[in-house]
Amino acid sequence: MESQYKLLSQIDSPDDVKKLSLQQLVELSAELRQFIIDVVSENPGHFASSLGVVELTVALHYVYNTPYDRIVWDVGHQAYGHKILTGRRDVFHTNRKYKGISGFPKRAESPYDAFGVGHSSTSISAALGMSVASKLKLENRNIVAVIGDGALTGGMAFEALNHGGSINPNMLVILNDNNISIDPSVGALKEYLLDITTSKTYNKLKDEVWDILGRIDRLAPKTRSVIQKIENAVKSALLKQSNLFESMGFRYFGPVDGHDVVYLAKILKDLKDIPGPKLLHIVTVKGKGYSPAENNQTVFHAPGLFDKETGERIKDSSGKPTPPKYQDVFGETLVELAEKNPKIVGITPAMATGCSLNIMINKMPDRAFDVGIAEQHAVTFSAGLAAEGLIPFCNIYSTFMQRAYDQVIHDVALQNLPVIFCLDRGGLVGDDGATHHGAYDLAYMRSVPNMTVSAPMNEEELRNLMYTAQLELKGPISIRYPRGIGVMVDWRKPFQKVEIGKGRVLRTGSDIAILTIGHVGNLASVAADRLEADGVGVFHADMRFVKPLDEELLTRVGKEFKTVITVEDGCLPGGFGSAVLEWFNDNGYSVKVVRLGIPDVFVEHGTQKELYAECGFDIDNIYKTAKKYASSKAKLRVG
Amino acid sequence: MESQYKLLSQIDSPDDVKKLSLQQLVELSAELRQFIIDVVSENPGHFASSLGVVELTVALHYVYNTPYDRIVWDVGHQAYGHKILTGRRDVFHTNRKYKGISGFPKRAESPYDAFGVGHSSTSISAALGMSVASKLKLENRNIVAVIGDGALTGGMAFEALNHGGSINPNMLVILNDNNISIDPSVGALKEYLLDITTSKTYNKLKDEVWDILGRIDRLAPKTRSVIQKIENAVKSALLKQSNLFESMGFRYFGPVDGHDVVYLAKILKDLKDIPGPKLLHIVTVKGKGYSPAENNQTVFHAPGLFDKETGERIKDSSGKPTPPKYQDVFGETLVELAEKNPKIVGITPAMATGCSLNIMINKMPDRAFDVGIAEQHAVTFSAGLAAEGLIPFCNIYSTFMQRAYDQVIHDVALQNLPVIFCLDRGGLVGDDGATHHGAYDLAYMRSVPNMTVSAPMNEEELRNLMYTAQLELKGPISIRYPRGIGVMVDWRKPFQKVEIGKGRVLRTGSDIAILTIGHVGNLASVAADRLEADGVGVFHADMRFVKPLDEELLTRVGKEFKTVITVEDGCLPGGFGSAVLEWFNDNGYSVKVVRLGIPDVFVEHGTQKELYAECGFDIDNIYKTAKKYASSKAKLRVG
Repeated sequence: MESQYKLLSQIDSPDDVKKLSLQQLVELSAELRQFIIDVVSENPGHFASSLGVVELTVALHYVYNTPYDRIVWDVGHQAYGHKILTGRRDVFHTNRKYKGISGFPKRAESPYDAFGVGHSSTSISAALGMSVASKLKLENRNIVAVIGDGALTGGMAFEALNHGGSINPNMLVILNDNNISIDPSVGALKEYLLDITTSKTYNKLKDEVWDILGRIDRLAPKTRSVIQKIENAVKSALLKQSNLFESMGFRYFGPVDGHDVVYLAKILKDLKDIPGPKLLHIVTVKGKGYSPAENNQTVFHAPGLFDKETGERIKDSSGKPTPPKYQDVFGETLVELAEKNPKIVGITPAMATGCSLNIMINKMPDRAFDVGIAEQHAVTFSAGLAAEGLIPFCNIYSTFMQRAYDQVIHDVALQNLPVIFCLDRGGLVGDDGATHHGAYDLAYMRSVPNMTVSAPMNEEELRNLMYTAQLELKGPISIRYPRGIGVMVDWRKPFQKVEIGKGRVLRTGSDIAILTIGHVGNLASVAADRLEADGVGVFHADMRFVKPLDEELLTRVGKEFKTVITVEDGCLPGGFGSAVLEWFNDNGYSVKVVRLGIPDVFVEHGTQKELYAECGFDIDNIYKTAKKYASSKAKLRVG
Repeated sequence: MESQYKLLSQIDSPDDVKKLSLQQLVELSAELRQFIIDVVSENPGHFASSLGVVELTVALHYVYNTPYDRIVWDVGHQAYGHKILTGRRDVFHTNRKYKGISGFPKRAESPYDAFGVGHSSTSISAALGMSVASKLKLENRNIVAVIGDGALTGGMAFEALNHGGSINPNMLVILNDNNISIDPSVGALKEYLLDITTSKTYNKLKDEVWDILGRIDRLAPKTRSVIQKIENAVKSALLKQSNLFESMGFRYFGPVDGHDVVYLAKILKDLKDIPGPKLLHIVTVKGKGYSPAENNQTVFHAPGLFDKETGERIKDSSGKPTPPKYQDVFGETLVELAEKNPKIVGITPAMATGCSLNIMINKMPDRAFDVGIAEQHAVTFSAGLAAEGLIPFCNIYSTFMQRAYDQVIHDVALQNLPVIFCLDRGGLVGDDGATHHGAYDLAYMRSVPNMTVSAPMNEEELRNLMYTAQLELKGPISIRYPRGIGVMVDWRKPFQKVEIGKGRVLRTGSDIAILTIGHVGNLASVAADRLEADGVGVFHADMRFVKPLDEELLTRVGKEFKTVITVEDGCLPGGFGSAVLEWFNDNGYSVKVVRLGIPDVFVEHGTQKELYAECGFDIDNIYKTAKKYASSKAKLRVG
C-alpha cells in the first residue's frame, strides 16, 4: 500500500473499521474514495456509483456486525468500497479481469457478499427472505438492503415492499437517492422523490403549516385548543399518509445527507434498535468527490481508462478507423428508418446510453421512450403500441430480457403482434461476467410460437434485418447482436431486404460444413481461411435465422455431409445447434452435429476473446474441430 | 333468449346499451347478472369476478364508444359481462369449451377485446402503449384499463404507473377494489386501500379536519384568516400528497360504490373530459348479488357446476374413490415433510388455494407465505431464505414461472441455491387455454446451468421427488406436474429416496423404445398394453429427469434401438425430446428420435384429453406411432 492510504492500509476487515473514531471515519472515507479513483482509472470498471456511497459503505461496516449481519447491495455497481473494506483491497486491481475478482458482490467470493447481484431491484426480496429466515431460526441478525432510486422503479422492488410491509420483518432498506440510474432516472417516482427532497410540496407544506401553527401563542385559549387539534390531525396526515413508503408499511426516515459519514453512523445505530420494516432515505451525488464524474455522471458510470488528474478518457489512439459498436449501428439505423417510417417508435428500459437509443431520444423525443428499469412493462407497453398499428423497436439486453419472458410469450407472441425486439449484449459480454452474459436467448426465444429468431453476422446484416422487420413483418422478431465493436469500418451500406428464414452461403467447399449464427460467423470465416490454406474445403453458411431455419439450405447440407459443425455464442442446451439437430432428425437426415457454443455452466468474467476460448468456440477451436472432422470424412472416403 | 331477459335479449352490441335510459341500466345490470348465474352454473367457468363488475361493465359500454375506445380488462376473469354485451351472448354457453369462445378477452375473437389477457397485471402497460399510440396518430380514443386490487400487487403494474405518471397520457385506470384475488389479497397495499376505504386514517383525518374547520365562522376574523391558510395547506396535503396514486402522478378519484350503475355512468362521463392520467377507485363485492358467492368468494371464483338455486356445488357422484389432485398431493406432502424438517418453508405468489399451499398456511402460518401476485419477488424471496439455510418449496404454476425466469437464473441457479421449485399446471391445462398452458418450462429450465429438471409420472413419484429434494439437494430443482387429478387412489405411500438423474425402466420389450417424462408416462403405459396385446414388445422408461439425463439408460437404449419415441406434455422445440436427441448425437449414437409433444403453435382451450389428441400425444397416437416404427424395425430385421 502506498503511504497516502494511512488508514485504509490498516483495514483488513470491517473489524478494523470499528476500531476507528468517528472523526477517523471521515479520513477513511477520503482515502477510500481516492483509492477507488486511483485503481479504477487504471483498471476500468464501474466508477461513479461507488464514489457516491463511500460514506454509506464506511458507516455500514462501522455500525453493523458484518458478515453476521447481512448487507445486500442492489445491482452491485456501487459495491467497490465494500469489497475494498472486506479483505479485497490488495486484489482490487484484478477487478473484472479473467480469473480476478468479480465486478459485483458474489457469494462464492466472500462471506461479506451476502447475496450475489448484477441485475437490478432484487435486494429487498432477498433481504426480506433473509430477515424471515433469521426470525424463524431465532437469530438476531440485522438485514440491510441498499437500493438506488433507479432500481426502485423495477417492479419486483415494489412487490417486495408490498409483501414486506405486511409481515413486519426486522429489516432496513436504505434508499440511495442520487436521481440517476446509468442515464438519469425516469418516471413518476423520481418526481416524487425530488418532491420530498427539494421541498416542492412536502417540505413547503410542512413548513407552511408549522409556521402558521407557530403563531398559536398569539391566539385566544379557545382557538388555541382548536388549532392544537388541527396540528395533531395534520401531523398524522404528514407522517402516516403522506409518504409512499409509509403506505407500503415501511417506517420512513429521512431524507438525510448521504455524505455525512458521522451522521450516517449515528442514525444507523439508532435504527438498529427500532424493530419492524424501516426505510432510510439518503441523498447522495453519483461520482461524489471527483468533479469530472459529478459533472458527467452517465459517462463516468463506467468510463473505461481515464487520466485521473484531468478526467480525460483514454481512447485507443492508433489512428486507424475502427468498426462501430453494434449498439451504435442499432441506434443510428433506427433513426434512419424512423425518419422514413412514421410508425416506428423506440423503447428501452433504462439503457438509453447502453443501447444507443439515446440517439433517437434526442432526435425524436416524442417517439422514443426510456421507461425506467422495467423490462416487463417495456415489453407489454410495446405490445400496446403494436396493437394500435405502430412499429415498436424494443431494445433490451439479452440478459435482461429474461425478466420479460412471460410478456414476450403472453402479450406479444400469443397475439402475434409485430414487436421488433433488438437484443443487445447477446452472447458472452466479457468483463461484466456471469450475471450479464446473454447466453440463453436463442434457446428461450425459439421455443416461443410465432417468434422469428435472428442474429446478424455483421453491421450490414443488422441494418438489413432491422430494415426488413419494419418493412414487412407481421409478427414478432428477435434480432440479437453482441456487445462491443463489429467488423466493418464502412458499414453504412444501402438497405437490402432479407428473406425471412434464409441463410447466406459464404463458402461452398465439400470437406466439412460449418453452420454459424450471428457474429461468430466471423470467427468461422477466419478459421475457414486457415483450413482452406491447409487444403480443406469448407462449406460455410451464415444461417441468419434460428427460426425459421433455412430448410433448403439444410436439405443441401444434409444430403452432402455426414458431419456438420454448428457455432453459436449461446447456450448449447436447446440452442441453435440443437435446432439444427432437431431439423435433421425430424427430416430424416442422419447427420452428426458437432455443436460449439456456451457449455452448460455459468461462465465467469474475462475478455470476450478469453471466454470464447474457454468455451471452445474461438477461431482456434473452430479450426481444430473442423480439421478433425474433415479429415475423418476424408478417411471414410479413402476407405 | 328466454323471456326473463327482457332488455338483455335486445342487446346485440354496446350501441344497444347506449339507447337505454339510466334507469334501464339498473334493469340491464340485474338481467346480465342473472344471465351469468344461469349460464355459468351449467357451463363451468370463472364466476364471482364477473358478478362483481356487472354494473361497471354496463356503465363502461354505456359511456364509451367501444370498440373505437379501448377497454383493457386485467386478467380477464371478470370479462364475461363484457363478452355478453359485445355480441357473444348467444355463444356464451360455449365458453371455455373446445372450439368455443375463450374464457378470456382475445383479440382474434372480437374487435371489442382490445388486448388479450389471462396473466395478471398487464393492463396498465398495454393501455399506456395504446394511449401513446393514439396521441402519436392524432386520434382521440379513450383508453381504459380495469385492474383489481390483487393484480395491482404485480410489479409490472407499478412499473406502468411509474412510467405513465410521468408522460401524461390520456388514460383512465379503474381500480376494482374488492379486497380479494382468488384468495384474499395480501400485502401492504391491501391495508393501504382498506385504510382509504374504511376511513381508518384517511377519512377520519379528513372528517376531523373539515369538522374543525367548519367552526370557522365562530372565530375572530384574524383567526379565520389563519385557519383558512391552514385549510388550504391541509387540502393540498390530502390531495397532492396523501395518496399513493397521486405520488405516481395519477389523479385519484374515489372511492365510489362500484354497484351504483347510474352513478358510475355519471362519473365516467365526467372523467372523459379530464385530460391526463387518472385513477378511479371503485369498491365492489366479488360475487355481488349471488349470496353463496359473496359468502364464499374463493370457492366461487371458479366453482365448477353448481345448483343455482341452492349454491351447492355438483360433484361427481359415482361414489367410486378417485385419485387426488396433484396439487393436493403437493399440499399434503409438504406439510408431512415440514412437520419433520423444521427448515422447510412454503411460498406461493397468490395461488394458495390453486396450488394447495393453503394446507400449510393454515397449519403453519409462520412458515408458509402467500406473497401476492408477485412471481419475481417469490423466487428471489425464496433465494434469500435458501441463502440463510432454509429449504424453500416455491410453488408457481408453470405458465406464471415465465414471469420469474430471470430470477431463477440470476438469483437462484447462478448462486446454486437449493430452492425447490414445484411447478403446478405443467403441460396443457385444458379449458383456461392458450394463456395458461404450461408448455415451455421443460425447455426453458433445462437451458439453465445447475438446475435439476424433473417431472413425476404419478402421485407416488411426486412425493418421492419432494422427499428427496428436501433431504439432500445442494442446488435448485424444478419438479413439474400437471393440472388435475392423478392416477393413484392409494397414494400415501411411504417415502423412498430417488436417485437424482435416474429413470425407471417399466417395460423391457425389444421392438420399440418409448421414453416418457412426467404424467404422459401413464398414456404411454396404456398404449404399451395395447401394443403388447398386438405382439409388439415395448421398452418403456419413465425418465423422471430431463436434466441430468439417465446416461446409463440412454446408453442401453442407444445400443439396442435405431428408433426411439419420446413423449412429453411440453413444447417440442428445445424440450425433453430435444434433450434426448442432443444426448444421442453428442455421444455418438445414430438414433432416430420421434418426438411427440406440443407442437410449435399456441394451443387453444378444450379438455386436456381433447388437446392431447390435437397435439398428437394421446394414447391413440402413441400407439399408432409406436406401431409404425416397431413394424419398420421388424421389416429391417426380416430384411
